[in-house]
Amino acid sequence: MKYYAGIDLGGTKIYSLIIDENGNILGRNKIKTEGADSFENVIERIKECYYGVLKNSNINEDQIEAIGMAVPSSVNVDKGILIYAPNLGSGWRNIELSKIMFEKLRKPFFMDNDVNMGVFAEYSLGAVKNYHHIYGLFIGTGIGGGYIKDGEIIRGVNYTAGEIGHMIVKIGGPRCNCGRKGCLEAIASKIGIVNYIIKLVEKKGEKTILPEFAPNWRKSVGASALNKCFQRNDRVVVKALTRAAKTIGIAIANLINSIGVETIVLGGGVIEELGDVLIPIIKEYMVEYSIADGAKGIQLLKASLRDDAVALGAASFTSIPENSKYLYKG
Amino acid sequence: MKYYAGIDLGGTKIYSLIIDENGNILGRNKIKTEGADSFENVIERIKECYYGVLKNSNINEDQIEAIGMAVPSSVNVDKGILIYAPNLGSGWRNIELSKIMFEKLRKPFFMDNDVNMGVFAEYSLGAVKNYHHIYGLFIGTGIGGGYIKDGEIIRGVNYTAGEIGHMIVKIGGPRCNCGRKGCLEAIASKIGIVNYIIKLVEKKGEKTILPEFAPNWRKSVGASALNKCFQRNDRVVVKALTRAAKTIGIAIANLINSIGVETIVLGGGVIEELGDVLIPIIKEYMVEYSIADGAKGIQLLKASLRDDAVALGAASFTSIPENSKYLYKG
Repeated sequence: MKYYAGIDLGGTKIYSLIIDENGNILGRNKIKTEGADSFENVIERIKECYYGVLKNSNINEDQIEAIGMAVPSSVNVDKGILIYAPNLGSGWRNIELSKIMFEKLRKPFFMDNDVNMGVFAEYSLGAVKNYHHIYGLFIGTGIGGGYIKDGEIIRGVNYTAGEIGHMIVKIGGPRCNCGRKGCLEAIASKIGIVNYIIKLVEKKGEKTILPEFAPNWRKSVGASALNKCFQRNDRVVVKALTRAAKTIGIAIANLINSIGVETIVLGGGVIEELGDVLIPIIKEYMVEYSIADGAKGIQLLKASLRDDAVALGAASFTSIPENSKYLYKG
Repeated sequence: MKYYAGIDLGGTKIYSLIIDENGNILGRNKIKTEGADSFENVIERIKECYYGVLKNSNINEDQIEAIGMAVPSSVNVDKGILIYAPNLGSGWRNIELSKIMFEKLRKPFFMDNDVNMGVFAEYSLGAVKNYHHIYGLFIGTGIGGGYIKDGEIIRGVNYTAGEIGHMIVKIGGPRCNCGRKGCLEAIASKIGIVNYIIKLVEKKGEKTILPEFAPNWRKSVGASALNKCFQRNDRVVVKALTRAAKTIGIAIANLINSIGVETIVLGGGVIEELGDVLIPIIKEYMVEYSIADGAKGIQLLKASLRDDAVALGAASFTSIPENSKYLYKG
């Protein structure tokens, strides 16, 4: 039996797991990155997380064939270069990270974007297994995406495909963190939702019970606090969530109309907590904004792998023999 | 040598041509459909156009292997069904047109959407020959599109892919002919441009010299009249064309960001006449709205086949041996 490690490198945590060649998970490990603000420290933490998951899985280092790591950045997968990851701190730009990790961990090493890997996991082992023309949207603090056609992750010549969060759906609309106006993310991510609530409260004088569940909501709000407000029919939160769901539905219809995507998988923290509330509205708008019967038979599915998805995708992608050309081997 | 006919069935004209198996055009024929308002009459006109092009090409009916026809409708290419073509008059809905044409012309018959065929021609014989990940936008009275990945026309399960004209780029924006608000077509097609000029003139009291070149401009305006006004620096027309080009650039960036499209081909009457004016602005906005260096190296090319494109694509697609599965043969 062959074994593979998958690592999900995030801004606040590192999550790793080990799979066998059939995709079964043998063990997991999770450590915080907070405080590990220097580049060298983060590399040490990745190593620590990797040796921890070997131990948790009762797997010897020698049994590992290769390691896949997902990062919050676009990635030149052909050269193993992390392009730009602002969430990891300053200085995370144009780094030959696969080479560095290969030298550190002495295993063939693969690296890709985190949402690509999350969607790939849903394709290879999760909710959209064996579908052919798939777009994944992960809705959380921001919005990321991944495009898979006939089993191939479509990355584009500059490795920026999947950035559906920056699809412009409202020219002149709210300002996005990317600097542009009217991005999907600026309306429908958690940041977009909170900014809209701030606007309703501060500019329009509307009232909300959100502070009861998230006292510091302007800076940080969990999807569960939003859900509690929605369940109590808080007018402001209902309005903000409905607006977000409608806009996601329109963005999906844009994909159906323009490229005929056949299967949509929705994941991320906002969907995990609020999926039951949001998905029916998303679906309604997907249908309404698809030309003719364009949405007929289109699958809109909820991601099933939750916290495992990203690391599992990285391990699973790395385990496929045809992908060995992407591995950094020294 | 084998020969194939291609027919471009439009709302005002039928255009046909004959190619040999190498894609060389042997002859053309064009007749008007105006006045031929009944379904039966249009079918007779198609037949007339076909026999005319045989004569113009010095080709005997017996030498024709198969016929491909492009129609202004989404098409179930697997069953040869025209789904809905409002531009051809009432009653053009769910018609087994390949079967009807096969019985009329006694040749294996293929049918697809007109813009799909135009983009396919540019892929097989024109401006984007041998590119791998292509989106075509045809800007005219409306806006149509076509998506080709690795040589395959992507149509979607409901045959509605390519409808980039109905990508929502401005939620709550101008009303589109499709009934929705904020479609690309409602801003950047000739109809969208004219509607915006009407708004500037009637609601904002701005002045334009457009009536000098197109007295009946509210109802009908040629792209050449718009070009003349642009060349004379007519403020209203400059503003309307710039807005259209910016919006097309944003829609293309949406494709780059979300699906990593690598090559764009721009065609249609508005581009043929105004390409030199519009394409630099389209390119600027495509770059500005693409995340990171997403637009680096992306090819933005002008279609080269002009009036031939649609009929040529239909003939060319039909001539490919692997596509014979799509032909209606009785």
